[in-house]
Amino acid sequence: MIAYQRAVRFEEVDAAAIVFFGRFLGYVHEAMEHFCGGLAGGYAGLVVGRRVGLPAVHVDATYRAPVRYGDELRIETSLAKVGTRSAVFRYRLRRLGETCLVAEIRHTIVTTDLERLVSCDMPPDVRALFLAHLEPDPPGTP
Amino acid sequence: MIAYQRAVRFEEVDAAAIVFFGRFLGYVHEAMEHFCGGLAGGYAGLVVGRRVGLPAVHVDATYRAPVRYGDELRIETSLAKVGTRSAVFRYRLRRLGETCLVAEIRHTIVTTDLERLVSCDMPPDVRALFLAHLEPDPPGTP
Amino acid sequence: MIAYQRAVRFEEVDAAAIVFFGRFLGYVHEAMEHFCGGLAGGYAGLVVGRRVGLPAVHVDATYRAPVRYGDELRIETSLAKVGTRSAVFRYRLRRLGETCLVAEIRHTIVTTDLERLVSCDMPPDVRALFLAHLEPDPPGTP
Amino acid sequence: MIAYQRAVRFEEVDAAAIVFFGRFLGYVHEAMEHFCGGLAGGYAGLVVGRRVGLPAVHVDATYRAPVRYGDELRIETSLAKVGTRSAVFRYRLRRLGETCLVAEIRHTIVTTDLERLVSCDMPPDVRALFLAHLEPDPPGTP
Repeated sequence: MIAYQRAVRFEEVDAAAIVFFGRFLGYVHEAMEHFCGGLAGGYAGLVVGRRVGLPAVHVDATYRAPVRYGDELRIETSLAKVGTRSAVFRYRLRRLGETCLVAEIRHTIVTTDLERLVSCDMPPDVRALFLAHLEPDPPGTP
Repeated sequence: MIAYQRAVRFEEVDAAAIVFFGRFLGYVHEAMEHFCGGLAGGYAGLVVGRRVGLPAVHVDATYRAPVRYGDELRIETSLAKVGTRSAVFRYRLRRLGETCLVAEIRHTIVTTDLERLVSCDMPPDVRALFLAHLEPDPPGTP
Repeated sequence: MIAYQRAVRFEEVDAAAIVFFGRFLGYVHEAMEHFCGGLAGGYAGLVVGRRVGLPAVHVDATYRAPVRYGDELRIETSLAKVGTRSAVFRYRLRRLGETCLVAEIRHTIVTTDLERLVSCDMPPDVRALFLAHLEPDPPGTP
Repeated sequence: MIAYQRAVRFEEVDAAAIVFFGRFLGYVHEAMEHFCGGLAGGYAGLVVGRRVGLPAVHVDATYRAPVRYGDELRIETSLAKVGTRSAVFRYRLRRLGETCLVAEIRHTIVTTDLERLVSCDMPPDVRALFLAHLEPDPPGTP
């Protein structure tokens, strides 16, 4: 698990004065970019340099509590599954210093050759990073 | 079902040159705002005027094909379930004129008193609109 | 002058409950994309197909009144200047049906070869479209 | 002057593969929120707690070089002018470790009572913070 912290910003709330539900996918992508800081060149090096990306094929997001401007989030990133081409990221979001979750997001990606937009095998360094943070779900998890 | 059309805009792609996965939640929220055009005052009237909102408690998004700048999307909005306080929106996204889906999103909301941020019963006009577009999943749908 | 209309959306306000000042640049870019609908393939055809873009080198924005969720904007786009490589777009933003401006934005662009990121001459069809909507400032305008 | 650093993120580029010009206003607002970290409760405390905001009335932005995914920005924030109700923020944006500017932005704000959306005098702590970082333009600056 790698943790990432970031404050909610002024422009991220909606007309209901809480963080817009779509923003959470930006937050977890930031956490994923931070997670990939362990690669040489980071996620930018992977995408721009090596032209390999990790587009989403599925997202499952559960929102448990509203988040507001002024809140600071802590996002814990781990892998629930790692295959040869696909993987499932698991993000747990909490307000800093609190134990209850504000959101839990699962994000399935497929390693993709960005030149041809077709799936490809995970590069070995990416796979090694993912496996180092693999925390499989306990048996019986839906 | 109510359909909504909108072009992908210049700033909506990411560094992989495809629409960012989080943007789709903005797209379907737009489709939902359009859907709520059937209420007096629209969704803005509900949120700003009556101080009732429909925050997300769950999202399930399946991405089937990349979408690019220059594409135009058609989003079909219907209700998969309607309760007394909660409902499940179902969005089917296609490129204009194509039959295959680029994404399918289910979005569970809970009717919420925005002054106190607690759930409340759906106002009758909201419930009527939702029921008019209820298309329950066929039996056996996972 | 070409007019473009669009409603303020739910996620476009900030924690002060008014449209975030940076959003206006997204709005006027939309108006500019709409304006470029007069080109074969539109702005997307220019950028993606011909690999020619119009990046901003300068923006001057005057905000006269707050805009809120529920407002609908009308944006009038014209050209204040047209050179061989650069041009100045002028946008006037009003709430639908009102005469007073909520914002006035000038946006200087330079025609750019996106492969090499260097300036280039304006393609003839782009220049013709711009000249057709040229409304020079009256003498004495600061 | 207070400096703020932040990496360009994956979703912040546009279809021309450079940071969208409107994003820069989000960046400088972040720098301004960081700058206001010197207030008790920060900018969030001012806006949400005291219901005082600093909406923009004018922006002048000069873009000197394209910024890409993978770049990291350093934004220097200072005040060019401080009045009793209004002030002019000056932001200088560079790539980390470089000396040439990628953008220079001036942002005029008016202290505003957010309950009534009318201008008001700057609270003394806000004014003191601004004056501590006042760097007037040299005489002859346009």
